[in-house]
Amino acid sequence: MVSDRFMKQMGFVVEMDKLKRILRHTILTDRSREETSAEHSWHLGVTALILSEYAESEVDLLRVLKMVLIHDLVEIDAGDTYCYDQVETQDQEEREEKAADRLFGLLPEDQAQELRGLWEEFEARKTPEARFAVALDRLQPILQNYHTEGAMWKKNRISRGQVVARNQPIEDGSPALWDYVVYLLDDAVKKGMFPR
Amino acid sequence: MVSDRFMKQMGFVVEMDKLKRILRHTILTDRSREETSAEHSWHLGVTALILSEYAESEVDLLRVLKMVLIHDLVEIDAGDTYCYDQVETQDQEEREEKAADRLFGLLPEDQAQELRGLWEEFEARKTPEARFAVALDRLQPILQNYHTEGAMWKKNRISRGQVVARNQPIEDGSPALWDYVVYLLDDAVKKGMFPR
Repeated sequence: MVSDRFMKQMGFVVEMDKLKRILRHTILTDRSREETSAEHSWHLGVTALILSEYAESEVDLLRVLKMVLIHDLVEIDAGDTYCYDQVETQDQEEREEKAADRLFGLLPEDQAQELRGLWEEFEARKTPEARFAVALDRLQPILQNYHTEGAMWKKNRISRGQVVARNQPIEDGSPALWDYVVYLLDDAVKKGMFPR
Repeated sequence: MVSDRFMKQMGFVVEMDKLKRILRHTILTDRSREETSAEHSWHLGVTALILSEYAESEVDLLRVLKMVLIHDLVEIDAGDTYCYDQVETQDQEEREEKAADRLFGLLPEDQAQELRGLWEEFEARKTPEARFAVALDRLQPILQNYHTEGAMWKKNRISRGQVVARNQPIEDGSPALWDYVVYLLDDAVKKGMFPR
C-alpha cells in the first residue's frame, strides 16, 4: 500500500510546511507583521483566478496556478531575497539552484521534472503563462505597499524610480495591470508614500 | 482604462489579504506558532498538485485548485471554527453564509457566481473534485499534528475516535489517502500522541 513513490510525495508535502517560516519584505495591510512566502503564494493564486482576463495573451490558467503556487519553494532553503538588496541578490541564483536540486529532488522523478520545469519557466519569463505569473508576483507587493501608505518603501528608502525599474516586467505579462500600477505609483508620490 | 469591473476585482484582491490574519487550530511543524488560513490554503494547493493521482475518481485539477484556494475565504468575516468545538460549530453555517454574501459580493457578478458556486460545491462534497479537495483539507491538519507529536490533539484533548469520526470523508475523496491516515493514527496511538 505505501509505495516508495507515495512516501516521497508525502515527504515533499510535509517539507512544504517550511515555506510558512519564510518572512518577506512585505507587510499585511493591517501592518501587524510581514507576510510569509506561503501566504504570498496563496494570494497570487487567488489573484490569478480573478485577473487572468488581463493577461497580455490568452493563458492556460492551470499552468499559471501551478507556477504561482511553487514559484517560491526554493526559499525554504535559500531564504527570501529582497529584490532591492544588491548584496543579497548577487548569489541569489546560485543559492536558489542548489535549493531547487534538493527540494524538487524529494519528489518522484516525473513530478520533480514537472515542477522544476515550471519553476524554470517562471524564472525565464518567456511563455505567456510565466509572464503573467511574474506580473502578479510583482503587482502584489505594490498593492500591499500602496495600501499601507508605502510602509516598506519608506522603511527601506525605496524610490518610485526603483519600483518602476524593478517592476517593468509587469507590462510584458499584462499591459492593463501595468497601466494601473503606473497610476498607483503616481498617486503614491502625490500622497507622500515614497521617502524624500 | 479603470472600469468599474476592474475596480471591483482589485478591491476583492486587496480584501483577500485579511485571510492572512486568521489563525487556525493547527501549528507549524517547528511548533513556533499556529498557521494562518492563507498558509493552509496554499499548502492544500501544493498538495493537490502532488497527490491528485490518488483521487477516488479522475478529477479536473484546475477545479480542485480553484476550490482549495477559495474554500476558506469566508473565514475573513466568520473566523476559523474549530471542528471539534460543539458550541462554535452550532452557528457556523449561518456565519459563513453571511460572510459569503459580503465577500463574493465584492466581485463582478459573473465571478461572484463562479466562486460562490465553487465554495458551495466544496461544502456539499458531491462532485469528485469537491470530495478530493475536502480530503486534502482534512488530511493536512492530521499531517501537521502527526509531525508535531500530536501537539494540538493533546492540547485540546482530542481522541483518536474523534479524529476518525471527523475525517472519515477523506475516504470518499481518496481511499488511498484514508488508508494512510488510518496507518498514521494507529502509529500516533502507539507513540502516545493522543491524550490519555
